[in-house]
Amino acid sequence: MKQYIVIGCGRFGSSVAKTLYKMGHDVLAIDGNEEIVQHISDEVTHAVQADATDEHALRTLGIRNFDVAVITIGSNIQASIMATLIVKDLGVKYVVAKAQNDMHAKVLYKIGADRVVFPERDMGTRVAHNLVSTNILDYIELAPDYSIMEISALEAWSGKTLLEINVRAKYGVNIMAIKQGDLINVSPNAKDRISRGDVLVVIGHNNDLKKIQE
Amino acid sequence: MKQYIVIGCGRFGSSVAKTLYKMGHDVLAIDGNEEIVQHISDEVTHAVQADATDEHALRTLGIRNFDVAVITIGSNIQASIMATLIVKDLGVKYVVAKAQNDMHAKVLYKIGADRVVFPERDMGTRVAHNLVSTNILDYIELAPDYSIMEISALEAWSGKTLLEINVRAKYGVNIMAIKQGDLINVSPNAKDRISRGDVLVVIGHNNDLKKIQE
Ligand SMILES: Nc1ncnc2c1ncn2[C@@H]1O[C@H](COP(=O)(O)OP(=O)(O)OP(=O)(O)O)[C@@H](O)[C@H]1O
Ligand SMILES: Nc1ncnc2c1ncn2[C@@H]1O[C@H](COP(=O)(O)OP(=O)(O)OP(=O)(O)O)[C@@H](O)[C@H]1O
Ligand SMILES: [Ca+2]
Ligand SMILES: [Ca+2]
Ligand SMILES: [Ca+2]
Ligand SMILES: [Ca+2]
Repeated sequence: MKQYIVIGCGRFGSSVAKTLYKMGHDVLAIDGNEEIVQHISDEVTHAVQADATDEHALRTLGIRNFDVAVITIGSNIQASIMATLIVKDLGVKYVVAKAQNDMHAKVLYKIGADRVVFPERDMGTRVAHNLVSTNILDYIELAPDYSIMEISALEAWSGKTLLEINVRAKYGVNIMAIKQGDLINVSPNAKDRISRGDVLVVIGHNNDLKKIQE
Repeated sequence: MKQYIVIGCGRFGSSVAKTLYKMGHDVLAIDGNEEIVQHISDEVTHAVQADATDEHALRTLGIRNFDVAVITIGSNIQASIMATLIVKDLGVKYVVAKAQNDMHAKVLYKIGADRVVFPERDMGTRVAHNLVSTNILDYIELAPDYSIMEISALEAWSGKTLLEINVRAKYGVNIMAIKQGDLINVSPNAKDRISRGDVLVVIGHNNDLKKIQE
């Protein structure tokens, strides 16, 4: 169990804080807005109202004893930079910070952030991919042109066996798992039959995967 | 090729718009802020400054001819609801809207949104999982307690074959692929050897997967 501090409890920060807490970790949540602090207080270990650009305030909170700090201050880039600098200065080993854009990210790395995240940008690309291919449920990018995808089985595949569909030969991709309702088959074989509504996990080159997207 | 309209070009909206455009689609981006419109204009088909709560303005833009609208207005919940209502009213078939919270989402569905997304919340849970397990690079949640994970091979596995590591017997999970640099092995066998820095794709029950997380 690690000790986490989350600075800024907007939509992203509060989701990080609540998830860490649910996973059994100690979470100190800090926000400058008293109302937001009240709101999250039941779902984290401690919630405190403080200005994250006030070094004295953070020092008083014993920040330096925490393993990881996540700085999620959004619109106010200057405050995000100052908070990152202070937290790093106070000795927190691992600092993650949210950035607005590439310039902001560059500065955050320069002043010692160990990892910079772009939640809105990343989710924007995910949602765009999802919109274009209505049967892609989720994906992992393994390499720039190689992915694993969770897709809804094509209508044309219903009632057919893997041998009949023969995706490997036709599309050059491999089926790694088949989900039928709550059952997950992790070693599908040629005789397994696809039903309407099945979800498949496939791996392959993006160009090949594109061919089975609707 | 579909015609997309993206309303609101904040961090999330601009990422959606740029990604769709890069994928070869027609994208009309709308924002109330002239500066933001200028900024995105080179990366979408058209960018226009307009108030999305002004029905007349949207009608004039020919909104009803678009296949999909993505409403990403953030902080102003009222404007997000009005824009969704207008776009749906004008006849756009598929409308995706970003919500601030569950209440907001409920209203959006009630007035006809076909899909509601929570980019910050979703990314918050992803980043939290990632923080807790430093060797998890990415994951797909297949079922509430069953996932596929992209993980860095444990230090202890370097130089060993899959047979020697025997993850299936020891942890109850299956290795579906091994990535060594740019090479991806999608049908790993018992004699394949893990090297330092390899990335594995594993599938299994979350409780079992937890055991191979650092
Ligand atoms: N100096 C500060 N000290 C403490 N908290 C701060 C400070 N500046 C901003 N915050 C808090 O950080 C949170 C996130 O800020 P803001 O809403 O500007 O970002 P955002 O990127 O739009 O957030 P999100 O997209 O995650 O909802 C807010 O709850 C805000 O009160
Ligand atoms: N009525 C409106 N008409 C057109 N655009 C609008 C309207 N209201 C807000 N917008 C635009 O929507 C965009 C997103 O709004 P805002 O920055 O409040 O949301 P946000 O959730 O913090 O965004 P993000 O997290 O995606 O950066 C802004 O660029 C804003 O100018
Ligand atoms: Ca945001
Ligand atoms: Ca990845
Ligand atoms: Ca905001
Ligand atoms: Ca999923």
